Amino acid sequence: MTLISLPESRAEAEALDACDPLAPCRDAFALPEGVTYLVGHSLGPATKGALSALRRASEGAWMADRVGAWNSADWIHLPDRVGARLSAILGAQPDEVSLCDSVSVNLFKLAAAALPLARSRRLVVEEDEFPTDQYILEGLAGLNGAECVRVPPGQGAARLEGGVLVKSLVNFRSAELADMAAHEASARACGGLVVWDLSHASGVLDIELAKQGALLAAGCTYKYLNGGPGAPAFIYAHRELAPELTSPLPGWMGHAHPFEFSSAYTPKPGAARFAAGTPPILSLAALDGALDVFDGVSMQHVQAKARALGQMCLMMAEGMGLDIASPQDPERRGGHVSLCHPDGYPLVRALSDWGIEADFRTPHTIRFGLSPLFLGYAEIWDAMTELAEIVETRSWDTEAYRERAIVT
Amino acid sequence: MTLISLPESRAEAEALDACDPLAPCRDAFALPEGVTYLVGHSLGPATKGALSALRRASEGAWMADRVGAWNSADWIHLPDRVGARLSAILGAQPDEVSLCDSVSVNLFKLAAAALPLARSRRLVVEEDEFPTDQYILEGLAGLNGAECVRVPPGQGAARLEGGVLVKSLVNFRSAELADMAAHEASARACGGLVVWDLSHASGVLDIELAKQGALLAAGCTYKYLNGGPGAPAFIYAHRELAPELTSPLPGWMGHAHPFEFSSAYTPKPGAARFAAGTPPILSLAALDGALDVFDGVSMQHVQAKARALGQMCLMMAEGMGLDIASPQDPERRGGHVSLCHPDGYPLVRALSDWGIEADFRTPHTIRFGLSPLFLGYAEIWDAMTELAEIVETRSWDTEAYRERAIVT
Repeated sequence: MTLISLPESRAEAEALDACDPLAPCRDAFALPEGVTYLVGHSLGPATKGALSALRRASEGAWMADRVGAWNSADWIHLPDRVGARLSAILGAQPDEVSLCDSVSVNLFKLAAAALPLARSRRLVVEEDEFPTDQYILEGLAGLNGAECVRVPPGQGAARLEGGVLVKSLVNFRSAELADMAAHEASARACGGLVVWDLSHASGVLDIELAKQGALLAAGCTYKYLNGGPGAPAFIYAHRELAPELTSPLPGWMGHAHPFEFSSAYTPKPGAARFAAGTPPILSLAALDGALDVFDGVSMQHVQAKARALGQMCLMMAEGMGLDIASPQDPERRGGHVSLCHPDGYPLVRALSDWGIEADFRTPHTIRFGLSPLFLGYAEIWDAMTELAEIVETRSWDTEAYRERAIVT
Repeated sequence: MTLISLPESRAEAEALDACDPLAPCRDAFALPEGVTYLVGHSLGPATKGALSALRRASEGAWMADRVGAWNSADWIHLPDRVGARLSAILGAQPDEVSLCDSVSVNLFKLAAAALPLARSRRLVVEEDEFPTDQYILEGLAGLNGAECVRVPPGQGAARLEGGVLVKSLVNFRSAELADMAAHEASARACGGLVVWDLSHASGVLDIELAKQGALLAAGCTYKYLNGGPGAPAFIYAHRELAPELTSPLPGWMGHAHPFEFSSAYTPKPGAARFAAGTPPILSLAALDGALDVFDGVSMQHVQAKARALGQMCLMMAEGMGLDIASPQDPERRGGHVSLCHPDGYPLVRALSDWGIEADFRTPHTIRFGLSPLFLGYAEIWDAMTELAEIVETRSWDTEAYRERAIVT
């Protein structure tokens, strides 16, 4: 059961802010005044910690120590140190998480490594899955001859048949949350495996990988984890399964002793075996600094606040003439809400003129990302009040807007 | 024929510096005084351009524009814009080079994409090849069932048999330079293909990919190109071959229209089709800035100076009791020279106390990287004079050094 306090006035929203344990996190973000940033589900904003960590890595370590910084700044272990920090946020053990490559590449590695352990050589993905997940499985099937099957939304577990399912925990369009434990149970029952894409979940939900029985996952660090544009992705492999997994991309950084330059490949233990080439240290350093904001933060609080802010959005959107494209039940939802309007694009532009940044997905979906670490209740109250006024007055429906829409 | 001017005195070395067209480049580097940095073949030093580009991307674009920076800073095209800049250095066309992932991952993609075009399903690699190249081919063979053959050094072309050879243009240990045109001719004759690993060549040699007939290549940007630790790798595909190549890692960023979120995959044209996930923009921005130092620079000058500096090292090392492990002929050599000494490790440490930074590879190889954009003739003269004195006096062979060797 989720207890959510929903304010019925701005004063009540302010009262919720006043007792919000996450409110102090706002100061850690390098966000300008007057901006309500509702696109943290796409690219998290810079934190002061990320910017200073980036400076330390570049104007400090790289400039001052050059190649010596691999040791003096311990860059060589940075992917695993950041992985250990992230493991606490994901509900995993430190050696079960590492940082490497992108989500696309990590899904490829996990699906390829999972197939030999599954009962059937069948790759399964749902038709409304984030496109890269679909493309990557097709690419893998083209290489290793496995069967790749696209199934209708929600049918992945039922049609697994002992294969490997790649599944987003939170759907990128609707924010619908999948039942992780139920999927894992279905997979176990048929001899299959699930590879979770946590891109729209990590940093905003209390995922509890171990408790939910998840075995394999990859995810994005530049959304709710605020790691910076294109920050390296994470990869998770359950401690008991990891020794059985062979990376199809065994680069030297996944070798247990890369500087012995041995011709035989001995993988690192744990999730670190999935490292391939040299990691992008500057991007990784920014992510490391970005995670400072999560220190001492309860993911239960983060999840509860995300759901409360989302519920406020949906509650206030009702009656505005917007279609709600996300689950109404907060327990079935991730960190964003999707609203549809025929004039979605100019509407998002009009919001932006009021300092409210949201994103738009064709043909007419407006997405609001509710990052709990820098957004407040009164701020969302004001944004939704502004949205109501814009919708009511159709303020985008002017000659000036139409002209701008042509120009840009 | 290579004309190399070798100084026979420090005054002559100074005279060469005085008329060196590359001498002004030194000011672009953020190198401290009193350091002679001979490890540019491992990690290039920071340039002022790289550091300021990194600040613009982080404290500028990311902080100021957040997700909007994908458009306002044109991050979405950054991999291809940097690729176009790099193409001039490599002797290729702008659309033939893009930036993505690591060398390991890019070699995997190219070898997988080349196999269907080769006469035989045979992956060939030489036994002294950089280990990651060997590991990656084994990984690919484990996935697609191709034969993976390790052949003796120098036998790759002769034993290709219509397969795909992954070959370093410059050997990481010896700096021996392969004959690119001859390898391409051999491959054409047997219906095979060569995938070049340019990691130890790019930024220090005048590679002339088009002129040499190269079709496929990947390489490192954090060595002589000074892109920063773990900077994204480049990938090269000849314009005429690119349309026939299918990436085994078809991530959304390689899609011609990634934001249409289509379920069908249509690759981008050119080398950009090999993009997979979201690129690490901060690391890529640093690389973009690092390339400023190459603006208006002739790669012929760069190559000639690297060879001259290397020849000075070898000439002065003769008679010091060091074994020379690199080709004596500068036309058969890349940008570093390798010298062997039984006490190689303490010797490198003693050099470091004199501000001369070199690297050591087990069991007893000292490598000097001769980056022509920030090193000078007199500087190398002084470094080699210091080396001679250290070797002569065995200055590392003291109680103090032995104690430090135990501690660290």
